[in-house]
Amino acid sequence: MCPKPHSLLNIIRRYSMTVARPHITPNKYFTSNTAKDVWSLTNEAASAAANNQQNKGRELINLGQGFFSYSPPRFAIEEAQKALEIPLVNQYSPTKGRPSLINALTKLYSPFYGVDLKPENVTVTTGANEGILSSLMGILNAGDEVIVFEPFFDQYIPNIELLGGKVVYVPISPPKDVDERIVQGKDWTIDYEELARAFTDKTKAIILNTPQNPIGKVFTREELTKIGNLCVKNNVVIISDEVYEHLYFTESFTRIATISPEIGRLTLSVGSAGKTFAATGWRIGWVVSLNPELLSYVSKAHTRICFSSPSPIQEAVANSINDALKSDYFESMRKDYIRKFEIFTSAFKELGLPYTVPEGTYFILADFSKINIPEDYPWPTEILNKGKDFRISHWLINELGIVAIPPTEFYIKEHEKSAENMLRFAVCKDDEYLCKAVERLKLLKPYIRK
Amino acid sequence: MCPKPHSLLNIIRRYSMTVARPHITPNKYFTSNTAKDVWSLTNEAASAAANNQQNKGRELINLGQGFFSYSPPRFAIEEAQKALEIPLVNQYSPTKGRPSLINALTKLYSPFYGVDLKPENVTVTTGANEGILSSLMGILNAGDEVIVFEPFFDQYIPNIELLGGKVVYVPISPPKDVDERIVQGKDWTIDYEELARAFTDKTKAIILNTPQNPIGKVFTREELTKIGNLCVKNNVVIISDEVYEHLYFTESFTRIATISPEIGRLTLSVGSAGKTFAATGWRIGWVVSLNPELLSYVSKAHTRICFSSPSPIQEAVANSINDALKSDYFESMRKDYIRKFEIFTSAFKELGLPYTVPEGTYFILADFSKINIPEDYPWPTEILNKGKDFRISHWLINELGIVAIPPTEFYIKEHEKSAENMLRFAVCKDDEYLCKAVERLKLLKPYIRK
Repeated sequence: MCPKPHSLLNIIRRYSMTVARPHITPNKYFTSNTAKDVWSLTNEAASAAANNQQNKGRELINLGQGFFSYSPPRFAIEEAQKALEIPLVNQYSPTKGRPSLINALTKLYSPFYGVDLKPENVTVTTGANEGILSSLMGILNAGDEVIVFEPFFDQYIPNIELLGGKVVYVPISPPKDVDERIVQGKDWTIDYEELARAFTDKTKAIILNTPQNPIGKVFTREELTKIGNLCVKNNVVIISDEVYEHLYFTESFTRIATISPEIGRLTLSVGSAGKTFAATGWRIGWVVSLNPELLSYVSKAHTRICFSSPSPIQEAVANSINDALKSDYFESMRKDYIRKFEIFTSAFKELGLPYTVPEGTYFILADFSKINIPEDYPWPTEILNKGKDFRISHWLINELGIVAIPPTEFYIKEHEKSAENMLRFAVCKDDEYLCKAVERLKLLKPYIRK
Repeated sequence: MCPKPHSLLNIIRRYSMTVARPHITPNKYFTSNTAKDVWSLTNEAASAAANNQQNKGRELINLGQGFFSYSPPRFAIEEAQKALEIPLVNQYSPTKGRPSLINALTKLYSPFYGVDLKPENVTVTTGANEGILSSLMGILNAGDEVIVFEPFFDQYIPNIELLGGKVVYVPISPPKDVDERIVQGKDWTIDYEELARAFTDKTKAIILNTPQNPIGKVFTREELTKIGNLCVKNNVVIISDEVYEHLYFTESFTRIATISPEIGRLTLSVGSAGKTFAATGWRIGWVVSLNPELLSYVSKAHTRICFSSPSPIQEAVANSINDALKSDYFESMRKDYIRKFEIFTSAFKELGLPYTVPEGTYFILADFSKINIPEDYPWPTEILNKGKDFRISHWLINELGIVAIPPTEFYIKEHEKSAENMLRFAVCKDDEYLCKAVERLKLLKPYIRK
């Protein structure tokens, strides 16, 4: 006899409690990686602290996750609204992307690459995240190794490991006196002998990120040449995560693919509409490559992962790129961010707190070694095994109502010491909000170690 | 010395032709599965045939891929346009989905499940395709087996195999006289002894699809009970692809998860906004389960695949579901499709061509055994190794200008005989277009075998 449907959940609940059931073994990757990620930990701490005694009567200043506090530009919103009115723009797009978007992307990138890019040099993905996963799935076989620089964007690691790949870590090290002075991106360095030793006959790819999150470093042509030549020597694919490509504050931004034909043929460069148009929720990304054959494996993987990407948003991004190219959009966005960083770093300057000068991205790493954090604070147990920066972050949320991300999440345990006194702040917020953040940060004054 | 960027592509081209380069081995799955898929073959054949002698002066009637020829309902378009105006709706959503959409989905599904579903019973994905991939990635370990019924939706197979899973095929067999008469969905049957033998100690999941594409069969409660009980006996997860759940023309639609608590605890049910709101390009799907623990692994996989799904479209779908629940949207969509099938099947009735009466989906399988297809037609070589239906499809595109899908693509080679005389037609088109299709199909008259 069938149970009445409205009693089903109750029966399941009772059944769950009373009947021994055979167990289902899920993907072991998920049962063996159960620690809460930094985003959950930070967001949960922020929710819990929002109404504590210290934060009563004041707004929580959230500079944690890198989402924009403001809307995409008006022209982008309107392009999306117009796209929705076209019947077929609401239906499946070709799996490699809408021709309109592919054309806009070849127009956008051809001058940067100094060549006339063709449609086969571009493939559209459902966000840069899925672009990196598609790149990895396109080329990795189980057991292949992938070199990842530390600090890394946390998604890279499961993206590699879930496909049966092995991560080999190479640090980008801060200068010894990073806790004493304002340092430059170029002061964070790679030991090229260590990098050379990281390549084995199993190395299939290296993941590079420039402008780099969380350091804010823009790799120089010299650095990229050294990395690229090692990849050529070892015949290793370069997955270049360039999602912050329009947010560089150095004189120029070098794309590793353009350094030499040998490097170009090995490179998959990943871009993001969300970062380009202040719309992290739009989930449109792309991969550009001078090597169409290599890129074809990325498309094949994308076809199996998502089949195709959201059509009206693709159309909106296509038209927004065309609009942006007719105006000074990219240049003016760069100027906006130079101003935002000027506003925000004024707090650190006044407090005398060291930081890394942002050369790109909308993140900044600041060093809190000089801040007296109490030893006996009521720390939640789930952060006790983590780097010291998790305690600094927790204290800052609870005592000052400022949310920032502890960067040791972007290191393996053995290497986390280099960043244990730092916090990452996102400045992709409106100026007024950043001014409030500066005022709030000044409350750190009494805690500065003499 | 660095080459000038504008000469890069030329250098790469010359280099490619003249220098022996070490080879990069991409994912072997993609190098060993190089045959063109049915969508590329059919679309390419259609493009090539659009302007041939026979099709000159007439429109190609495309009933191939299942995209709608018309817009989503006006209220859905307007909800999407409104959502874009809210600044934070353009930024990242929580990885499990926007609370607004999760709430709308629990409201939509609670009456179907006869229980008050909670947010932990629903997770949002980037289309149903990524929902199925997330379900598989959430639970599969390399070497696990997944039972798939034939004919299958073609994406299931790479989704399983790319994760290191093994597909075990069980056919849904047509009646012997399927080429002679109009048959019912229930005439397509599973051999339950064969199904029972397909389970091994490595079986982790079974993929079910009801309403079934391409047969148009809606599984009966009796059939689902037999399948579900075998899964309970073997402790096997049921991934129930229910993307056509609102398109059933039988008295009712049974969800396997609601049959018993034991079956419910093993079931992940996949739904689609694209199918529900005639917007296949929106790429929002979801997975519903009475077992929140099982579902949590789907969310974890989704987090690593896409991180989160497009926010403005999620918001639009949330509000569209609420709008639809206040009107007779779902009932009226069903009525529309009953009418569309009446229009379209009139052609087969007049020609005396057998077909399977559609009980659900927007597809119909018709049998072309009675049509005289010339033996010596100029067949392209790429379809010579394929089932006979690929030749029927090619001939129909070229001679009559009608595009339909050869269903043996949804079978493994050994089993394709059961469908080699059939074609799948999609009727998700406006009525006028379907009337044109009927007129065009009547041109088959002179080819009917006496």
